[in-house]
Amino acid sequence: MKIELGVKNCLYPLPTILVGALVNEKPNYIAIAHVGIMDPESVSLGMNKLHFTNSGIKANKTFSVNIPSTKLVKETDYCGLVSGKNKNKADMFKTFYGKLETAPMIEQCSINMECELIKTVDFPNHDIFMGKIVNTYCDQAVLSDGIVDLEKVQPILFVMNNRSYYGIGKRIAKAWDIGKDLIK
Amino acid sequence: MKIELGVKNCLYPLPTILVGALVNEKPNYIAIAHVGIMDPESVSLGMNKLHFTNSGIKANKTFSVNIPSTKLVKETDYCGLVSGKNKNKADMFKTFYGKLETAPMIEQCSINMECELIKTVDFPNHDIFMGKIVNTYCDQAVLSDGIVDLEKVQPILFVMNNRSYYGIGKRIAKAWDIGKDLIK
Repeated sequence: MKIELGVKNCLYPLPTILVGALVNEKPNYIAIAHVGIMDPESVSLGMNKLHFTNSGIKANKTFSVNIPSTKLVKETDYCGLVSGKNKNKADMFKTFYGKLETAPMIEQCSINMECELIKTVDFPNHDIFMGKIVNTYCDQAVLSDGIVDLEKVQPILFVMNNRSYYGIGKRIAKAWDIGKDLIK
Repeated sequence: MKIELGVKNCLYPLPTILVGALVNEKPNYIAIAHVGIMDPESVSLGMNKLHFTNSGIKANKTFSVNIPSTKLVKETDYCGLVSGKNKNKADMFKTFYGKLETAPMIEQCSINMECELIKTVDFPNHDIFMGKIVNTYCDQAVLSDGIVDLEKVQPILFVMNNRSYYGIGKRIAKAWDIGKDLIK
């Protein structure tokens, strides 16, 4: 017997990221977790149109995705609470640039992806920015045998239902493998 | 000093879901994890055009999102390994329907969202299906004080980098709260 909850989004957890963009030629960072993957080379950001950052992404057609670790949870949450209209949030971090010149990235985040805006989908209150990854940067410390190790990255997972951040748990199985047992 | 990885998508983990659709009037389920949220009432699916399920979503303009728990990791992985062209994967589950008549849902998944297709974005090899949630169903067992409790749902988190499934970890902080310490 199922209980009906009405329209309740339960597609969580999603990784909390810091989106970097140049707004009025200055680096700005905002925390969001309404993100997604479309195909292996692309990511989407669902950003309320009221945010300061949106104009910078539209103007430059670039942005960055920075993945903060649980150690940065306070700074990350702050970047979701405070608008770049009123505060220079970039002061908290060391900014660097990659191939693109208008996608500021955060040195203190162990993973950074610089992205070119390829499409914007207009939702009633949100801009959905779809970006193609141009290059990815990481700290040596989060690699295991040359592969990015999420257990070392320790991303901050967002759950809307109870407005909480979680860490990543234990590895439970190998993907595209454990189900082979059921193929007869 | 950052290491350059080239184009490497690191926006993980993402929740592994079972997408339900009617294909040729029969329920079919496929495991995907390239998903996202656009706004509070919507979700996106990034689905390779080769998948059997895509035609059903296009034909009926509906689909369901079913969230399997870690206990269903084997069945879930199987639904990503095997095509509905060759196997009737729905046989493994008990199917139910909600308000929509063409969005089959899985009784054994503790969370089910039935969705109306509102937009499809054409990527080179993928259909990006964007759906508006019409109704959400859950098991009583995953509620805490009337709120969906992800620690009870125990979703399967997918990480592409090392092709692994993870569980959710510990709650580390309250969102839109812990950062208030930094507001002076």
